[in-house]
Amino acid sequence: MNLAAVETPAGVVDLPRARDNLRRAAAYCRGHGIAWRPHVKTHKSLEMARLQLEFGAVGLSVATPHEAEVMSQVTDDVLVAHPPAHPSKIARLCALPTEVDIKVGLDSLDALRPLCHAGAAIGRTFGILVEFDAGLGRTGVVDVDDAVRIAECAASLPGGRFDGLMFYPGHIRIPRRDQHDRLARLADRLRRFLGALAEAGLPAHTVSGGSTPTLWDSHLLPGLTEVRPGTSIYNDRDILGMGAARRDELAFSVLATVISVAVPRQAVVDAGSKAISKEALASGVPGYGMLLDRPEVTVKALNEEHGMLDLSGTEWRPSVGDRVRIVPNHVCACVNLQDQLWGFENENGAVRPITLEGRGRGAPAAHRLTL
Amino acid sequence: MNLAAVETPAGVVDLPRARDNLRRAAAYCRGHGIAWRPHVKTHKSLEMARLQLEFGAVGLSVATPHEAEVMSQVTDDVLVAHPPAHPSKIARLCALPTEVDIKVGLDSLDALRPLCHAGAAIGRTFGILVEFDAGLGRTGVVDVDDAVRIAECAASLPGGRFDGLMFYPGHIRIPRRDQHDRLARLADRLRRFLGALAEAGLPAHTVSGGSTPTLWDSHLLPGLTEVRPGTSIYNDRDILGMGAARRDELAFSVLATVISVAVPRQAVVDAGSKAISKEALASGVPGYGMLLDRPEVTVKALNEEHGMLDLSGTEWRPSVGDRVRIVPNHVCACVNLQDQLWGFENENGAVRPITLEGRGRGAPAAHRLTL
Repeated sequence: MNLAAVETPAGVVDLPRARDNLRRAAAYCRGHGIAWRPHVKTHKSLEMARLQLEFGAVGLSVATPHEAEVMSQVTDDVLVAHPPAHPSKIARLCALPTEVDIKVGLDSLDALRPLCHAGAAIGRTFGILVEFDAGLGRTGVVDVDDAVRIAECAASLPGGRFDGLMFYPGHIRIPRRDQHDRLARLADRLRRFLGALAEAGLPAHTVSGGSTPTLWDSHLLPGLTEVRPGTSIYNDRDILGMGAARRDELAFSVLATVISVAVPRQAVVDAGSKAISKEALASGVPGYGMLLDRPEVTVKALNEEHGMLDLSGTEWRPSVGDRVRIVPNHVCACVNLQDQLWGFENENGAVRPITLEGRGRGAPAAHRLTL
Repeated sequence: MNLAAVETPAGVVDLPRARDNLRRAAAYCRGHGIAWRPHVKTHKSLEMARLQLEFGAVGLSVATPHEAEVMSQVTDDVLVAHPPAHPSKIARLCALPTEVDIKVGLDSLDALRPLCHAGAAIGRTFGILVEFDAGLGRTGVVDVDDAVRIAECAASLPGGRFDGLMFYPGHIRIPRRDQHDRLARLADRLRRFLGALAEAGLPAHTVSGGSTPTLWDSHLLPGLTEVRPGTSIYNDRDILGMGAARRDELAFSVLATVISVAVPRQAVVDAGSKAISKEALASGVPGYGMLLDRPEVTVKALNEEHGMLDLSGTEWRPSVGDRVRIVPNHVCACVNLQDQLWGFENENGAVRPITLEGRGRGAPAAHRLTL
């Protein structure tokens, strides 16, 4: 079977490009002595996770209990970079195979205590990374005193083990020049947190950073020990637009079929917001995607099962039934919309399914819990 | 089990409200002699489809082959309101149970001919609705001559049967007063298409309109025989914002847990863009959702597994572990992100799973086809 036979809409992966993207990230991290702990949120796939581990990942980063359960099949080193703030999620982490070392990033005593108590009750110890706000203003403590307080509690509680710091620099969009000030401010902030912890007798052995846009500047952050890039396996229109990937590093696209050309200067494809996420670009550049081989053609609008291609900048006039490949704005949200992906070694050759074991929420833990 | 035990993020349905919403739509249609053919894209659920049929729906509207396959289990009257423009999709429609009457909306001879040929080859006849552009500029022929040409071809081809017209008035956001001009222009356009078809000896027996915003003004469109509202079963922040539903008609929300309050004047919940679709409101009102019981609290930002609640307009200060219910901007995209929903008769009472059989793309037809 080849791409022409694949029913649309479908997420497709250029496997050589994906492997090259992984190798490049692995080589950068190796070269700078930084541990590579890729985030599986982008690919959600055991096959891709295995590749990452084979290429040198020290372990994996996950966001959900289901991702942790699935990825525990292929690694014994999982960082849950998201506070589990409900008994059901904590129960799922507690039930992970005992040989898997689970680290959890969190920013409050309210998230820390129930987790450690549950761990202690079954003889499990969770490594704790205290998250500080890198400047994004999403999660993470703002004051160093709060970080010290949580670290002390983690170090003292049975079921807890203080491992270090975590942050997410989602506000920094490298390599834009004006973003380097933000990186410098983050480095200062990181130094402050590290200093306060060391002073309290709680040195951070792990300092976990992240994000694909900042990946290639990770060595500029003093004390950083590991990174958690997710998107860099596939890249997308957003990453391309900020200059953090080249066009030949775009490894994912949505295959779609033209279903209507009735309205002048546009073609409508069968990939809508249920196949391509309707996320605007942070840069303000309009559109929800672009054609892989015709970047001048953008997806100007999306309804649920309709994608409107803007033909105003091209002489190209497709017909009903023609196929296109669309690079989405945000690949992580887009992969999450697919039942499975199709991978190929050569776009004219055979395709094969790539399963997405980490998609969805898994068996609702509530079914297994007596509350 | 009750709401407190449900692991978050989770889509939850207030069943009495959903039934009331359906009864109201059914009564309106009955009162005006318009057939009610609700679109299942919103709920994706056999249980909800059965309710709609029980309350008087004449059949169901679907967008995908998988929705058609699933809904054929509960009705013998399905409108596929989306051109199937690939052999694989056509093969799936051909394979539907023979007792199910399948109608297809399309706007080109290129979509029509392969469908009818495939039907004729197996002795199946597809009812054809010719789609015209209601003013949205998405799909649908613009010229009446094109509509007549497609209708003639549908009427003459074995495997085809000309049934009438279809349109989607997605550009009209009733009840805003300035939108009534658009409705009047649509009525004029509809008259023109109906006149040309009648003149060509091809009267449209079916005229299928749609959309939740225009639902309650359907009787103002001359010649309309049926409507395809989807969203009105649950409603959402968008429908509320345009005044086409009241707050007590909001039947769907995303249950979420507060995971961080580290950054001042905000609370972060575990429902991000993979639980609430990151779709902006067409009205330009900011935010991606609002709390069901505190509409002054909006979701100001979404990352994949993080939703940022804006607390600047409230004195309310939640703690880590607290639960909230979020009304999304666009419920259809949001339901599509869930593995299943939870329904309740009373928000303090028991919850039970609502399965989403119509979600996803179904078994890839490519697996069943020899191409």
